Amino acid sequence: MTTTTRYAFDTDTASTPVGEHEYAIDLSRRWTTMAGTANGGYLLATCLQALRREIPQPDLLSASAHYLRPGVTGPARIRTEVARIGRRTATGTAVLTCEDREIVRVLATFTDLAQAQGRTFESGKAPVLPPPERCVNPLESADWSASTIAGQIEFRTPEVPGFFRGAPGGTTSTEFWLRFADGRQPDPVALALLVDSTAPVVFDLGVSGSSTIELTVHIRRRPAPGWLACRVRTNHLINGFHEEDFDIWDSTGALVAQSRQLAIIPADS
Amino acid sequence: MTTTTRYAFDTDTASTPVGEHEYAIDLSRRWTTMAGTANGGYLLATCLQALRREIPQPDLLSASAHYLRPGVTGPARIRTEVARIGRRTATGTAVLTCEDREIVRVLATFTDLAQAQGRTFESGKAPVLPPPERCVNPLESADWSASTIAGQIEFRTPEVPGFFRGAPGGTTSTEFWLRFADGRQPDPVALALLVDSTAPVVFDLGVSGSSTIELTVHIRRRPAPGWLACRVRTNHLINGFHEEDFDIWDSTGALVAQSRQLAIIPADS
Repeated sequence: MTTTTRYAFDTDTASTPVGEHEYAIDLSRRWTTMAGTANGGYLLATCLQALRREIPQPDLLSASAHYLRPGVTGPARIRTEVARIGRRTATGTAVLTCEDREIVRVLATFTDLAQAQGRTFESGKAPVLPPPERCVNPLESADWSASTIAGQIEFRTPEVPGFFRGAPGGTTSTEFWLRFADGRQPDPVALALLVDSTAPVVFDLGVSGSSTIELTVHIRRRPAPGWLACRVRTNHLINGFHEEDFDIWDSTGALVAQSRQLAIIPADS
Repeated sequence: MTTTTRYAFDTDTASTPVGEHEYAIDLSRRWTTMAGTANGGYLLATCLQALRREIPQPDLLSASAHYLRPGVTGPARIRTEVARIGRRTATGTAVLTCEDREIVRVLATFTDLAQAQGRTFESGKAPVLPPPERCVNPLESADWSASTIAGQIEFRTPEVPGFFRGAPGGTTSTEFWLRFADGRQPDPVALALLVDSTAPVVFDLGVSGSSTIELTVHIRRRPAPGWLACRVRTNHLINGFHEEDFDIWDSTGALVAQSRQLAIIPADS
């Protein structure tokens, strides 16, 4: 069997059942950050892919991940527990361990978004961006060789952000396009990876690193194929801790994901 | 022993160890909503009070709660599991059950906020409100007799919001003051209750109910005593699902808590 026809996201988040509610996975080196550790969104997606095997509802609705140790690559285990399967939603836990050391613990709720009914009233606005073909690829002008996730995801920005040019501009809000580099189209679990797939916006304050403590993502609609418009903002860096809000709209201009993470920067940043 | 000298929050969130990592609690009827169910923030706080007994770090940093069934009152059990106690943070799970039916599952990380060091850079601004003594008590003009939590918390608003007067104004953002009615001062775990203590802002769209699916709160600083200034906003009600962002600043004007919940309104709203 070869995996050459599969997308990197699907290949690298797939685990194998090895017991009741237990899965084995070889965490890929294709999703590491500048720090050389596995991306938190990637680890979250692997947990969700295992958990969804045991849940009848097709769509991720809400996932909360608490990160206990730096992200690892290589052999790991995922232990799942289904807490409740209801008519409309189902909830469960997934715990990813490496050599019995817990790396991330996830609590997630699934639903069938196609069955969602009720009112719609939106005051939030999608980013106003030039079309992707009139934007630039900010990664072209930066040395991201230490990061492998940068090879899996394509970005388009109206202009190259300051910190990509080694000249942090002091902004803590940004808007851009992204998509998987290999043509893999977004879906709810993929969105849970994508909300953590970019360099933290606090890097534009001259900060050199950031470790996620907690990340929650809500999936608001099934995304349409195509480029995704993103808005990322940090309003409060306090004594080294910062939140990052990362919202995604699909190619039709519909909000599809909202996330917030709490992270910590190095004390000497 | 009497509990007359203790505050309602402390009395009603205290549980009794009944086994290894298991606690018994009689969930109070003093924290019910208009729907007659126990408030979600109250249930979250009870879970956190049990879990913190097993964790050396003094301050709640981040808690994520997934709500599986409507909130109950009366006898319940809380099962805890400590996932990791690290040098800086510690993480664990708490599950609240009633007659073996799981009501809420919580994942939480604690730290010592007094030890937090590193940069501070804040672009977010505190609400601009008249002082509490020049605001009004919106509950005076509404019939909240079906709600007992309204008796535990005092509010002050610049003017009475439309939906309190039976005339929903169509806004989905509001700012106001709050505090515990009995003089109990805020602390990190109390903030986890308070971010869920008010009528959902979507009520100003004429919506009559809302059930929390997931709530995450991040504690950003230990709060100073006194009134708390709050900003609540819903940007996206989509097919019945809505987020609610609830941020709290303390009496010194410092951001102390940020929360977001995903909730669902009745299909006929």
